[in-house]
Amino acid sequence: MDDSERSYTAALIIIGNEVLSGRVQDANLNFLARELKALGIRLREARVIPDVPETIVDTVNVLRSQHDYVFTTGGIGPTHDDITSESVARAFGVPWERNEEAEQILREYYGDDVNEARLRMATIPRGGRLLHNPVSRAPGFNLGNVYVLPGVPRILQAIFAGFKHELTGGRPLRSKTITAPVPESYAAAGLQAVQEKYPQAEIGSYPFFHSRGFGTAIVVRAVDEVTLERATTDVAALVRSLGEEPVITEGEGPSPRAQE
Amino acid sequence: MDDSERSYTAALIIIGNEVLSGRVQDANLNFLARELKALGIRLREARVIPDVPETIVDTVNVLRSQHDYVFTTGGIGPTHDDITSESVARAFGVPWERNEEAEQILREYYGDDVNEARLRMATIPRGGRLLHNPVSRAPGFNLGNVYVLPGVPRILQAIFAGFKHELTGGRPLRSKTITAPVPESYAAAGLQAVQEKYPQAEIGSYPFFHSRGFGTAIVVRAVDEVTLERATTDVAALVRSLGEEPVITEGEGPSPRAQE
Repeated sequence: MDDSERSYTAALIIIGNEVLSGRVQDANLNFLARELKALGIRLREARVIPDVPETIVDTVNVLRSQHDYVFTTGGIGPTHDDITSESVARAFGVPWERNEEAEQILREYYGDDVNEARLRMATIPRGGRLLHNPVSRAPGFNLGNVYVLPGVPRILQAIFAGFKHELTGGRPLRSKTITAPVPESYAAAGLQAVQEKYPQAEIGSYPFFHSRGFGTAIVVRAVDEVTLERATTDVAALVRSLGEEPVITEGEGPSPRAQE
Repeated sequence: MDDSERSYTAALIIIGNEVLSGRVQDANLNFLARELKALGIRLREARVIPDVPETIVDTVNVLRSQHDYVFTTGGIGPTHDDITSESVARAFGVPWERNEEAEQILREYYGDDVNEARLRMATIPRGGRLLHNPVSRAPGFNLGNVYVLPGVPRILQAIFAGFKHELTGGRPLRSKTITAPVPESYAAAGLQAVQEKYPQAEIGSYPFFHSRGFGTAIVVRAVDEVTLERATTDVAALVRSLGEEPVITEGEGPSPRAQE
């Protein structure tokens, strides 16, 4: 495997009692999954954890040793329950201290209305590099391979847009979707054979049932274009052998959408 | 702490490459979080993991030793990528074998149209107890403290409705939301004081910004009703000291909704 074939992986840590209590539905996993995929970085794991310092410290340390990139969301606001930044400092064993650049950004933004709670958002682990926030100014930060982001999706998305060009990825995972009105089980044996023929492809089978009918969407994912084309052709032939004409589309299907 | 004060916890394992690739957005975490909360069981962690047998085995074994209940979603269909059931058998060190009751259910449902792939859905770990599926028949199962459920939300929800009365929980975590048009940072110092006064309450502060205005929703969560009332009263007084009249609502606010 030459260097161009190196694969890059990421993990996401969603920090927040409000996700685990059902108060809000996370929307950041789906966004980051798609963005990272396009950059050639595979999201391999996500964990939703509560606002507990030890849990944040341990989770950051486990995942940053296993992946090229770790992203955290949530817990970087001005209140007592915003403990992500301090916990990341503990995970890295560095001081949590006022960052002059961040303080200047917040003082310029808030003017006379700056207060201690807001300056808490200028307190980050030593060595952290600020990630610019064009929406509400309070920055995220990057330390080592960890990127600390807010939980509010439109702010997270704006910050991510500002640094994503700095991330190094491999060849993107490409995908095609073969959709047909066949029951999943009819295709099962054939799909297993195609999967075994192309071990470097990843073939997923997703049944759907909705008002327009039922059927199966078969997604072929592969880094290598030739593998992708060949496996897609084989899956399409399988569908035709079952008496149906497949619809082949680029990517993983209409998006983003809920599970059906 | 007498037995009535015992707290019950759960973890959720979301199994599926299609969630990590961004193809679909998980909807089961939010559903289960709310349902379990009502039953007095706190969802303390969720992990989204890929369709990799070793990862499923390890994650099931780690989490079932740490929580009263573990729920898995996804990967129990008829195709080659449906490997949850087999992996749970490995996690428990028991054979993965045809279950007669499940086979009978599927044979009755599919009639002459039963096939090997469909009977894969009747293959579960030895000792597993079937969880009835009133929608598409293929059952989930329960083994030890692990509940194995499908990924399709409406099927998961129907199965869950059939067994949730069997789950043992503690006193439910109750919550109230105090909403006011104040910047989060203005309330920060006061909120920290309320949190310190009521260590058994869990106080979360969630800013919002939408077309109807901006402000902060402060959620007080507590098992004990008196603690909940007192902390809520203190937070409301804090908001009034900032010159605004709080709106107090039961629960965690309008739901389910996206992060704002």
